[in-house]
Amino acid sequence: MADAPYKLILLRHGESEWNAKNLFTGWVDVNLTEKGEKEAARGGELLKDAGLLPDVVHTSLQRRAIRTAQLALDTADRLWIPVRRSWRLNERHYGALQGKNKAQVRDEFGEEQFMLWRRSYDVPPPALEDGAEWSQSDDPRYSMIPSELRPRTECLKDVVARMLPYWYDSIVPDLLTGRTVLVAAHGNSLRALVKHLDGVSDETIAGLNIPTGIPLTYDLDTDFNPVNPGGTYLDPDAAKAAIEAVKNQGKK
Amino acid sequence: MADAPYKLILLRHGESEWNAKNLFTGWVDVNLTEKGEKEAARGGELLKDAGLLPDVVHTSLQRRAIRTAQLALDTADRLWIPVRRSWRLNERHYGALQGKNKAQVRDEFGEEQFMLWRRSYDVPPPALEDGAEWSQSDDPRYSMIPSELRPRTECLKDVVARMLPYWYDSIVPDLLTGRTVLVAAHGNSLRALVKHLDGVSDETIAGLNIPTGIPLTYDLDTDFNPVNPGGTYLDPDAAKAAIEAVKNQGKK
Repeated sequence: MADAPYKLILLRHGESEWNAKNLFTGWVDVNLTEKGEKEAARGGELLKDAGLLPDVVHTSLQRRAIRTAQLALDTADRLWIPVRRSWRLNERHYGALQGKNKAQVRDEFGEEQFMLWRRSYDVPPPALEDGAEWSQSDDPRYSMIPSELRPRTECLKDVVARMLPYWYDSIVPDLLTGRTVLVAAHGNSLRALVKHLDGVSDETIAGLNIPTGIPLTYDLDTDFNPVNPGGTYLDPDAAKAAIEAVKNQGKK
Repeated sequence: MADAPYKLILLRHGESEWNAKNLFTGWVDVNLTEKGEKEAARGGELLKDAGLLPDVVHTSLQRRAIRTAQLALDTADRLWIPVRRSWRLNERHYGALQGKNKAQVRDEFGEEQFMLWRRSYDVPPPALEDGAEWSQSDDPRYSMIPSELRPRTECLKDVVARMLPYWYDSIVPDLLTGRTVLVAAHGNSLRALVKHLDGVSDETIAGLNIPTGIPLTYDLDTDFNPVNPGGTYLDPDAAKAAIEAVKNQGKK
């Protein structure tokens, strides 16, 4: 397509140990489950079958996204492509909710507050104090983030604000060289990116879920606007089913 | 150590499918065996136990080195560090010997020619024609190497010549920032680097073997000369035993 020169692929990590346990994870660095590993490899199969081979991969600093990228690229025989990483692609920091059971939070604070923390655009949960359990204040991987910049809780609006500089400064330059770019990240950092790409309103984004392990591809024009708004899932039926499953998270 | 500010760690990939079959591999992109995966994870254990945590990793473009780095860094909880890759860290290109059984080559060409190809410093095997079986001439990962630069066979001297620009232009700058650098690569690309670091003569390098999966650490002074010549293996006893095993490769 002459008017859609840029190809972007978004991939949300497969099921993690804490997804499976229904805990708020955020910046806690949990691993993939065996199911999550299979989802990641399946994502690589879909890329290979579609002939959509990434030339460069961007990941967060969290192992569930990093390993998802590794497993997908291994399956697609693209392990050798350049790798870039940033905390700006990390999952939303869930503040004091990190490590807590979603159903218990719902019971303790009620449906309204629960949904506000989970889905409102601009209401963050209470902050997580440095040094508290499930805080990453001493994690060496974040030592290069000055204290005033390091998140202690985030709403989706905060994620958009800290993700966008990485989109503009690192991903767009890779797209500009004509490379097919894979971004392996998280439910909320990818929702933030999709919100930006598709111009989704602050209200509508609440209802938008991105399924795990199914590549979501965008063809972008020279202004980096999608010529396929909403993107295209490589396995639309599986995506539809998975989106429903995400919606039901937190229900008992 | 005030006079040894730079820390370098070399890691040779674990056993590959073709190591196990006693075939000349070179640039053929074979995978690790299960034993090789365990060696890689063990390498990560050794790093963790020694508190020698890499801040950045450099790999070849070959999956056996890439996966060795991934498995070692996973074990050491350093998956999130920056990754750099280059064909200049690839294994020696074995030319027309690629894909051939070492014992058969020994039988066909005799002990003297076999050892000349394996261990002489400056006698490469016959070149492998583009498009031949086991050639990588159509592999997209090497598409950025101009044809006149792309190896079709190499002796160790050739490996030193193509590896050194990467040492100077990519690894040294990372060391200069004070980062602990891990290089996950291959028997001959690491021999080339050790030859350079330790000033090993063209004759002596023939007898120098680097074992798989055991981190070899160098403390470098401000001129990038080792203050521990020959480097230090994190598991010296295992290294000694493994070096003997490598020496016996190709024997029936």
